[in-house]
Amino acid sequence: MAAGTSSKETCFVTFAATVLTLYPEMFPGPLGLSLSGDALARGVWSLEAKNIRDHGLGRHRAVDDTPAGGGPGMVIRCDVLANAIDAAVPADDPRPKLLMSPRGKPLTQSSVRELAAGPGIVIVCGRFEGVDERVIEARGLREVSIGDYVLSGGEMAAMIVLDSCVRLLPGVMGKEASGTEESFESNRLEYPHYTRPREWEGRAIPEVLLSGNHAAIERWRREESERITRERRPDLLER
Amino acid sequence: MAAGTSSKETCFVTFAATVLTLYPEMFPGPLGLSLSGDALARGVWSLEAKNIRDHGLGRHRAVDDTPAGGGPGMVIRCDVLANAIDAAVPADDPRPKLLMSPRGKPLTQSSVRELAAGPGIVIVCGRFEGVDERVIEARGLREVSIGDYVLSGGEMAAMIVLDSCVRLLPGVMGKEASGTEESFESNRLEYPHYTRPREWEGRAIPEVLLSGNHAAIERWRREESERITRERRPDLLER
Repeated sequence: MAAGTSSKETCFVTFAATVLTLYPEMFPGPLGLSLSGDALARGVWSLEAKNIRDHGLGRHRAVDDTPAGGGPGMVIRCDVLANAIDAAVPADDPRPKLLMSPRGKPLTQSSVRELAAGPGIVIVCGRFEGVDERVIEARGLREVSIGDYVLSGGEMAAMIVLDSCVRLLPGVMGKEASGTEESFESNRLEYPHYTRPREWEGRAIPEVLLSGNHAAIERWRREESERITRERRPDLLER
Repeated sequence: MAAGTSSKETCFVTFAATVLTLYPEMFPGPLGLSLSGDALARGVWSLEAKNIRDHGLGRHRAVDDTPAGGGPGMVIRCDVLANAIDAAVPADDPRPKLLMSPRGKPLTQSSVRELAAGPGIVIVCGRFEGVDERVIEARGLREVSIGDYVLSGGEMAAMIVLDSCVRLLPGVMGKEASGTEESFESNRLEYPHYTRPREWEGRAIPEVLLSGNHAAIERWRREESERITRERRPDLLER
């Protein structure tokens, strides 16, 4: 989070989020606090969570069924999910519709930037074994993955997408880009940070950072950034 | 989430999580519901959130200061964070101490599996521009990243780590591995899922899945898995 928080003046909603989930009570959750929560309270963005189960079938409002062809788990029905989408989102809604899924395209800072520049997002949160493939095709859901690990559902992944977008909205962080962000844009990991006290448990702040020599500081940071990227994420250097 | 939820019998805490954060009120949040929440309520795992600000300095309980050498944002002080860690975690605590950070080693399903097999985790959530490098070294924090994007803080990233671990704890999902998980273990994305109804909006379930021919179903799924991985994540095929 960069310094320079915006003034409290009223502003238009620039980003509208609709989440389709079996756990609407998870929202806003952590998105209701801190940077995203302040922006939500100020009306910079809006968030609605819709319960897929409202469109479930029968007395038990069933949303899932066993997979065709056998196998573990349960699959969310295409008809139920399509009804939930159609009820929440008008056909001409310009917002991209994402489905959080480990099969999706990996989220990156540049896809976050693109999403944040648009009118908002509709996010479908998967649960169980997955979602019937036909609704993904028929409703044009864009599958997005936040990483190569398995979660109990898409809700926390949706929060990650929303938090990463909201901090980029106008008036949320101020104009100043954070160093972390700058480093991602250049495919480098960030250099090490230090602050007061000057010495702590026998460890000192590197002399160069206290030298006041801006060119030398800049060079040291660039070299550290390179070194850390080479050590930890050589894959980034090839991009 | 696979079928076969465990019985409600009492069991020992097998996984203890301690989170150090400036927003303890974000927890358990979404981790208090659904699969992770049920397991928390049954005592399969435990979660405590400690406020770093309790160790802040002066009347305003300051936790951060400007970066040595200049630049945007604020840096969390090493002395404050070390005091928070030392107060929350005994020196001989066997749990790994993670720092959520975009500079960290990427979280993968195999690192999740390792963490879940251990006694638990201590997670430090960064905020602002970052954390003084000296406390990372002095307290042996292991930097972990959930993906190549920037968040407003480490709290939601910590939730991702915890949710992915908890679902693997004994008694949480039952014995049956989910298909998503199996596909990650073999570095392939999962094949498409279908369930009832057999036909919907003119789209039919692929014939082979209704054939009852298990060998043919297995082959179709393997081929689809290969095709989708090749199209979406050729990087996985090289691992």
